[in-house]
Amino acid sequence: MTMARTHNSVFDRRESDVRSYCRSFDTTFTKAKGSTLTDADGREYTDFLSGCSSLNYGHNDPDMKAALIEHITGDGIAHALDMYTDEKAAFLEAFERLVLKPRGMDHKVMMVGPTGTNAVEAALKLARKTTGRKNVIAFTNGFHGMTLGALAATANAGKRKGSGDVSLNDITRMPYERSLGDMDTLAILDAMLSNPSSGVDAPAAFLVELIQGEGGLNAASPEWVRGIAELARKHGAKLIVDDIQAGIGRSGSFFSFDEMGIEPDMITLAKSLSGFGLPFAIALIRPEDDVWKPAEHNGTFRGNTHAFVTARVALEKFWADDSFKSEIAEKAKVLTESLQRIADRIPGAYLKGRGMMQGVDVTSGELAEKICAEAFRNGLIIETSGGDDEVVKVLAPLTTPMEQFKAGLATLEAATETCTASHTIAAE
Amino acid sequence: MTMARTHNSVFDRRESDVRSYCRSFDTTFTKAKGSTLTDADGREYTDFLSGCSSLNYGHNDPDMKAALIEHITGDGIAHALDMYTDEKAAFLEAFERLVLKPRGMDHKVMMVGPTGTNAVEAALKLARKTTGRKNVIAFTNGFHGMTLGALAATANAGKRKGSGDVSLNDITRMPYERSLGDMDTLAILDAMLSNPSSGVDAPAAFLVELIQGEGGLNAASPEWVRGIAELARKHGAKLIVDDIQAGIGRSGSFFSFDEMGIEPDMITLAKSLSGFGLPFAIALIRPEDDVWKPAEHNGTFRGNTHAFVTARVALEKFWADDSFKSEIAEKAKVLTESLQRIADRIPGAYLKGRGMMQGVDVTSGELAEKICAEAFRNGLIIETSGGDDEVVKVLAPLTTPMEQFKAGLATLEAATETCTASHTIAAE
Amino acid sequence: MTMARTHNSVFDRRESDVRSYCRSFDTTFTKAKGSTLTDADGREYTDFLSGCSSLNYGHNDPDMKAALIEHITGDGIAHALDMYTDEKAAFLEAFERLVLKPRGMDHKVMMVGPTGTNAVEAALKLARKTTGRKNVIAFTNGFHGMTLGALAATANAGKRKGSGDVSLNDITRMPYERSLGDMDTLAILDAMLSNPSSGVDAPAAFLVELIQGEGGLNAASPEWVRGIAELARKHGAKLIVDDIQAGIGRSGSFFSFDEMGIEPDMITLAKSLSGFGLPFAIALIRPEDDVWKPAEHNGTFRGNTHAFVTARVALEKFWADDSFKSEIAEKAKVLTESLQRIADRIPGAYLKGRGMMQGVDVTSGELAEKICAEAFRNGLIIETSGGDDEVVKVLAPLTTPMEQFKAGLATLEAATETCTASHTIAAE
Amino acid sequence: MTMARTHNSVFDRRESDVRSYCRSFDTTFTKAKGSTLTDADGREYTDFLSGCSSLNYGHNDPDMKAALIEHITGDGIAHALDMYTDEKAAFLEAFERLVLKPRGMDHKVMMVGPTGTNAVEAALKLARKTTGRKNVIAFTNGFHGMTLGALAATANAGKRKGSGDVSLNDITRMPYERSLGDMDTLAILDAMLSNPSSGVDAPAAFLVELIQGEGGLNAASPEWVRGIAELARKHGAKLIVDDIQAGIGRSGSFFSFDEMGIEPDMITLAKSLSGFGLPFAIALIRPEDDVWKPAEHNGTFRGNTHAFVTARVALEKFWADDSFKSEIAEKAKVLTESLQRIADRIPGAYLKGRGMMQGVDVTSGELAEKICAEAFRNGLIIETSGGDDEVVKVLAPLTTPMEQFKAGLATLEAATETCTASHTIAAE
Repeated sequence: MTMARTHNSVFDRRESDVRSYCRSFDTTFTKAKGSTLTDADGREYTDFLSGCSSLNYGHNDPDMKAALIEHITGDGIAHALDMYTDEKAAFLEAFERLVLKPRGMDHKVMMVGPTGTNAVEAALKLARKTTGRKNVIAFTNGFHGMTLGALAATANAGKRKGSGDVSLNDITRMPYERSLGDMDTLAILDAMLSNPSSGVDAPAAFLVELIQGEGGLNAASPEWVRGIAELARKHGAKLIVDDIQAGIGRSGSFFSFDEMGIEPDMITLAKSLSGFGLPFAIALIRPEDDVWKPAEHNGTFRGNTHAFVTARVALEKFWADDSFKSEIAEKAKVLTESLQRIADRIPGAYLKGRGMMQGVDVTSGELAEKICAEAFRNGLIIETSGGDDEVVKVLAPLTTPMEQFKAGLATLEAATETCTASHTIAAE
Repeated sequence: MTMARTHNSVFDRRESDVRSYCRSFDTTFTKAKGSTLTDADGREYTDFLSGCSSLNYGHNDPDMKAALIEHITGDGIAHALDMYTDEKAAFLEAFERLVLKPRGMDHKVMMVGPTGTNAVEAALKLARKTTGRKNVIAFTNGFHGMTLGALAATANAGKRKGSGDVSLNDITRMPYERSLGDMDTLAILDAMLSNPSSGVDAPAAFLVELIQGEGGLNAASPEWVRGIAELARKHGAKLIVDDIQAGIGRSGSFFSFDEMGIEPDMITLAKSLSGFGLPFAIALIRPEDDVWKPAEHNGTFRGNTHAFVTARVALEKFWADDSFKSEIAEKAKVLTESLQRIADRIPGAYLKGRGMMQGVDVTSGELAEKICAEAFRNGLIIETSGGDDEVVKVLAPLTTPMEQFKAGLATLEAATETCTASHTIAAE
Repeated sequence: MTMARTHNSVFDRRESDVRSYCRSFDTTFTKAKGSTLTDADGREYTDFLSGCSSLNYGHNDPDMKAALIEHITGDGIAHALDMYTDEKAAFLEAFERLVLKPRGMDHKVMMVGPTGTNAVEAALKLARKTTGRKNVIAFTNGFHGMTLGALAATANAGKRKGSGDVSLNDITRMPYERSLGDMDTLAILDAMLSNPSSGVDAPAAFLVELIQGEGGLNAASPEWVRGIAELARKHGAKLIVDDIQAGIGRSGSFFSFDEMGIEPDMITLAKSLSGFGLPFAIALIRPEDDVWKPAEHNGTFRGNTHAFVTARVALEKFWADDSFKSEIAEKAKVLTESLQRIADRIPGAYLKGRGMMQGVDVTSGELAEKICAEAFRNGLIIETSGGDDEVVKVLAPLTTPMEQFKAGLATLEAATETCTASHTIAAE
Repeated sequence: MTMARTHNSVFDRRESDVRSYCRSFDTTFTKAKGSTLTDADGREYTDFLSGCSSLNYGHNDPDMKAALIEHITGDGIAHALDMYTDEKAAFLEAFERLVLKPRGMDHKVMMVGPTGTNAVEAALKLARKTTGRKNVIAFTNGFHGMTLGALAATANAGKRKGSGDVSLNDITRMPYERSLGDMDTLAILDAMLSNPSSGVDAPAAFLVELIQGEGGLNAASPEWVRGIAELARKHGAKLIVDDIQAGIGRSGSFFSFDEMGIEPDMITLAKSLSGFGLPFAIALIRPEDDVWKPAEHNGTFRGNTHAFVTARVALEKFWADDSFKSEIAEKAKVLTESLQRIADRIPGAYLKGRGMMQGVDVTSGELAEKICAEAFRNGLIIETSGGDDEVVKVLAPLTTPMEQFKAGLATLEAATETCTASHTIAAE
């Protein structure tokens, strides 16, 4: 590892060793605009990480920025607990008009603590309350958060260890599509739920990501997704789609399940929901499931008013018509082609993911990390994914100008070439 | 109940029934400055709720506001995961210089998901990891959050029910000071932990609030707090002070335990930490407990960069010397006197809390709610607390101008007079 | 420690190290009659342990023995699952006539796996099923068994460790009478259950021993027992009396709660129930709680037919009138006097227990073990009890002839004298 | 259903409704010898249930009976806790000589509470203690007992419901061989344990029956069993074979895994272990796993002395040479042929099980129950098995004289003919 540039800094002295991304990108950032980050030395980086899909519209989008500055300047409310504000009304109206109504969804919006894990916890609670069941079906390689209820549903062994060895209960793990080679994972799930002596208790919910962002960019096929939705209905379980990382355009449309012919009972959203990188999370729930008593699930920062402002602008700017979707599709095609060139260079490598959430399984975590490190040396911020960090994952802002996007991909391709060359030499 | 002004609104159509504060304060707010909120009709309200202690410095403090606008205008970073930014450095340096060093604390700062419950979950995990024990001592009437790990430590029956009836494990409940009349609750705790056949497993941690904000404004005495700290040490448990509601000046000084002669192993902070009402939470941990592997506990919104900006300004503006503390003390005295007048009016009523976190137990939840509703009709935003909502709780911004503060208290006293008069009449 | 006589034996080679009583009484026993055990060398021992109260009528009672031999000789059934047999009918009729009817109890008999822990597990399940609640109140120093459900309710730290560190859930621990000095433990329990924010969930049951056999011979007063019964009713919890060790005459009458004015909802019985030392356990449950579906709780050895035979004889022989009760009372008086002489010899020592379940807290486990070891050298089998093994516990067969009983007590008094003399010398 | 002959009896008045076998066999039994039961009316029944495999040597075997009567007559010990007795020594020596040594097994014998579920609980505890892991792999359709630890591993939904809805934790359910059609269940298990992000925590143990007695007579192939043993070793899990129902000759040899080339780390035995139907259970554990502290897992009836006597005789009589094994094999062949005739009569029916633990899946629980009821009317005691009770299960004593065995099978075949004829007619 190279000498840490931030050695002896206040970070070393005073920030917990749990910090992680800063270890891969060991510099101090000072400015960000669009898809470009600038560090303290004035060096510019193209951002292919996007705050792990929290900055799908890039950094400091000028329209959101203007609206937010106007809001603050005019002493707009920053914090109102869950009281009514005109910003909340405007956000809800935009969300209703631009997201829910066009899809014929009658879901209600539950404001939860402004992190994805809080949304997942709320959805799990509600599924259990409404069904009177405790067990939840979660899937291999799923990632749903770090608080104990969501952590129980999270598959990663290292993350689970963090619990301090308390039991993580009331979850049954089932294989995700293609996690068992060619085996029919839907048939396995159906068999386990249909057999009264399977030992798998009747489930309150299925909790599923349509593209597993942390678990290795596994993208479920529409057929599998529909199968999951049918099995949930058949077995009386709520279908919860965790769209925290794959939602808000990342998969190619607003929801990752758009055009798949399903309507989840609950949907968790966070990350890019605010549009500006501000903490904001919601759970969408069906009206008939909205059995909460007031404050039965509460929290201080539910409904971040600054985020209402930017989220509304984001909805109006990007989702009023289909042009943004077309843009994403075009970029996704460029991305696929570039990643295919990378995969072709590495024996055994193959593409993963979907839309603007794609990557390459380069067959080893070691190689993936080398490629990302080399890319960073050349001004590209990019990270790995997967159980062994074996996937080089591209999460560029969806708004990245095509020129910059292609340049970033060129940097990545060059980094791969460098690393596979040296890799080959080292192996010889 | 009065006709809801927001009836037939988008809130009714699209916001989950779990919303609660908006039910007490049924209007739409549009602006906020200092201790004053304005609604859509232009009506002004004095805020004695402060976002449940998330707005200790009032709304839209001009210095924080200016710094935040400057940051956003200059394309300062909004979201950086846990990468290094100059704003994070500046916050950490200010926190070190103004909070930690003056107290001789060598604690490190763990950035957690920006809600209090995430900080509590992180602290519980770390206490379990570092001790190899699972059991955590939590106290009657404690409130620590809504995600499953923190909810297990939360005492309120209604909140616990929200879990959908999953077991809330690995917590032993112990009586808070004065929760059992004159009984020596420290002696009970010590006896239960000293007896190898008590059935109370050796604890990883004690998790305690020094003033129980949701649980009824129970304020522990310095003697009890020192006793708890000694028992934690004696029995090998980490002392975690949950200072989410009582911290950041609310109790009279920065931490609620200042000048009590204890140094907790871990401290959770959220609510007023950002200074501006923005979502932000941290856990303070001892360097020797900082055994986390990178990303072992992670999350997208750890380290809200906008909050770093405002939190730094708040520290520099209010905590560089003792003047703010003196101001709080002066106001707290005025508060005590006013609340005493209220208590004197109601047989059996008595004062609760400490510093600027005081209230009156008016002997019934029904009366407390009537008083708060009457106050709201007269332009004062104020809420109840306690297991039966029996405490009228004053959580005014610490920065409220004395004039406005006294006027607010006068409104509260008048509301009490109105309600007790009618109450008496109704009883006759 | 003395050289183990059984060294190099098949026990060393092939029996798990978990064995324990054989370590205190390191000889091989070959015969047993009444209150006398004989070992392979023909040495005789008086039994003041009675199989931990499983042999309240002594070894090989001639009437039970004759009936059992007759049963076996005539090819009576040894094992019938839970099918109907004439021996089961005869036992149930005797139990109804001699135990239930005289007390006006309409309880039904649930046959459970033939160990105490199985009876406890069955009662806990049923309490949870009938109340729809999960939490169970158990008490400090309680002992209820080693299977996971019962172990959760067991207080002893060493026993709990045996679980392999899985969480032992859904139990709240409360202080037993006098476990907190003079504090009012009933008041504590009531306060914790009455406060909706205590964090103690509404209980399905109270699980309590009236004399804690393993926990140190703590005997609850009738006032406390009545208080517990009232609190159970007040808070909607089933009252389960675990009478496995204290029942079947040990306390002075058939049930340990006789003449206390309470009627438990459920009672667990095992140990001396068969009368002959054979494995047998039942749970008594109210008819209105008998909501089991057939086989919902099952097991192979429920209803040990040999035990039905001996248990019926025991009931008819000892409980048809009050003479046995008077005998026990007389012996208990002699016991108290002898133990008082022992206690008087040891500064700080004091008597514990009730009826024929008494002992002396000799202030240290070390001394108690020395006394028991010295007694064994002199032909008396006796054991310790309590969290630190600090209580010398007398559990003689209730049928011990007075002569032999007094001789045994004399041996114990002499052993105490020897040990306290040497103890004093060692201390000087 | 026919009028219950035991209506208005003491069973109705005083025995819990949880009783079950007596409902299928509604008469009162009075005598038993070999494979014949006699009821109160003097009617004789052939026993094809054998106490669910607890009477593999039939009722009241004359040699065991003689030894037991001699033991009792001579005031042999009935109950000795876990002290040393000559009967325990003799049992251990016989078990060592006749069972362990011939197989080269160095296992030690752990005396547990005398029911199968207690043996399972002990084994689970020990596996968790020795590995420092909590998770246990159990299989679909597995049955392991009714106490909470064992119940968590039991698959049957009805049995699980009996827990009163407490969470049954720390178990991961995996598909048993052929439970998913042709899918490779070993590959599924290996994949789930090899993927660090599968969400299946590293297991302390695999808990498996080689023939699932309650789960439908599913018999694992030697290949699958070896695969399971290899996967346990590969993934650092203890292999626990639950041989409670399939062991002690039922499968054809003493252990169900004999001649399969595996040596389990732990084996649970109960049911026919005593040979006479007396309650008795043990866990076999490897010496290196015998890390128990004395009494860390205890219980009153561990080591039933009467059972030691009969169990020793059983070992000496039946397992000193291979003749009993040959007898079983011969009978098993006859059984297979008879069951095949039955299966041939019912479209879709097929044979299940192995050795003297075979049955026919008659395609519906309704038909299976009709057949068993008809058989009982004709003097044959026989029961069903499986998740829907769809398997007619033959568990005749292994010692049944060939004549009686064939007559019993003829009764069963006739009953099937009667029921399928009427079934067909009913369907027409």
